[in-house]
Amino acid sequence: MAGSRASIDELVRSLKPSELAKMIDHTLLKPYATVEDLRRACEEAKRYGFAALYVPPWLVEEAAKLLEGSGVNVGTVIGFPLGFTPTKVKVFEAREYARRGAKELDFVVNLMALKSGDLEMFRRDVAEVVAAIKELGCVAKAILETAYLSEEEKVIAARIAVEEGIDFLKTSTGFAPSGATLHDVMLLAKIASGRAGVKASGGIRHAEDALAMIAAGATRIGTSSGARIMEEFLKLRERLRP
Amino acid sequence: MAGSRASIDELVRSLKPSELAKMIDHTLLKPYATVEDLRRACEEAKRYGFAALYVPPWLVEEAAKLLEGSGVNVGTVIGFPLGFTPTKVKVFEAREYARRGAKELDFVVNLMALKSGDLEMFRRDVAEVVAAIKELGCVAKAILETAYLSEEEKVIAARIAVEEGIDFLKTSTGFAPSGATLHDVMLLAKIASGRAGVKASGGIRHAEDALAMIAAGATRIGTSSGARIMEEFLKLRERLRP
Repeated sequence: MAGSRASIDELVRSLKPSELAKMIDHTLLKPYATVEDLRRACEEAKRYGFAALYVPPWLVEEAAKLLEGSGVNVGTVIGFPLGFTPTKVKVFEAREYARRGAKELDFVVNLMALKSGDLEMFRRDVAEVVAAIKELGCVAKAILETAYLSEEEKVIAARIAVEEGIDFLKTSTGFAPSGATLHDVMLLAKIASGRAGVKASGGIRHAEDALAMIAAGATRIGTSSGARIMEEFLKLRERLRP
Repeated sequence: MAGSRASIDELVRSLKPSELAKMIDHTLLKPYATVEDLRRACEEAKRYGFAALYVPPWLVEEAAKLLEGSGVNVGTVIGFPLGFTPTKVKVFEAREYARRGAKELDFVVNLMALKSGDLEMFRRDVAEVVAAIKELGCVAKAILETAYLSEEEKVIAARIAVEEGIDFLKTSTGFAPSGATLHDVMLLAKIASGRAGVKASGGIRHAEDALAMIAAGATRIGTSSGARIMEEFLKLRERLRP
């Protein structure tokens, strides 16, 4: 079962470190981080070969320079973390960040429209932002911020995002009271059922948690603890070696 | 002394309810609020005659319709709450929200540039955003998010914002671990020394706290508890009546 010791051990045995790294979106999104922190995060991303490094929008250009030729994509966030900016602003952000070198773009959906039952507005926002991101040749991830949603709202939001062609359903911003849960990852994976990936994020700080999320159906892990997770994974492998 | 019982009682005696109301920026910025919550907040804003009602950017147009002719300004937020979007995006937001009817615009400064010691970048961001907001004929408020700043950083940020012509220095977004303190309000009031107002925000939920902030030098109170503060103020007045 996902999250069980057995499912984690199985992944420690079967997953290569480079494969795990390519499932990790390493993240530096603290508002009080420094440019020095950015340089360190870029070094980590290159050392382990993460899928992407997520940086604050104003640092995309700098990160793109530092990561050039490394195979690590620059990612950034749109309408973050509250999702309540107009679609027009989200689209402007997407274009601006792609122009500066971002390849993966995570936007927060309009939670208020969802909560207000205005599903037409909710869908239009998702559709226009996804279309803009894909037109730019970037990967589109919709952050649902599941901490604020009922079960029903999670299902509606995920279904609409998949219908509108999202590349990844993402659980959390990391700025809500809680982050990814195994339950939510399993729910999103079931709804995506192969048509979209699932990015588990928010509060994932150790290898066991990352692996449990993967066993539950996550295809990408968003975390500011990418380096620690890789080191812990290498130790787990040592321990299980015959 | 600011915050003392005596200073609060003095304000209860001297301040008219309508004067207090005109110092309050009533606020609805929860990501999980509904359109129904917006209608309620508009009713409260009209009933008490607040200075402004702050709403999520995508609802500015709706709020402007609901508040038309009421004397209550529509306010909204830019680069909120993390402040790490590029200046160009902040300026785009300002123009978009003014066009939709916002009259007061609070933007979060680039905390990362400040923390990284890149004061030129920090100043340029503030200068361009303030210039854009004033060109639009709107009131400009710079959110410093003091919870994340050292004393020295607070002073530097406040001085630069005042030099660049800000209308109000604002303490907090309400999304950091802590909000306005009397200490910070006094510090900002000293630096502003009449050249800018001071907006105390974050965690102000009762009349005594609002009045203590005013005694400390705040000229505007940002709060989602505007209605409660007014009701409590009216009760405090009853109690002190000779």
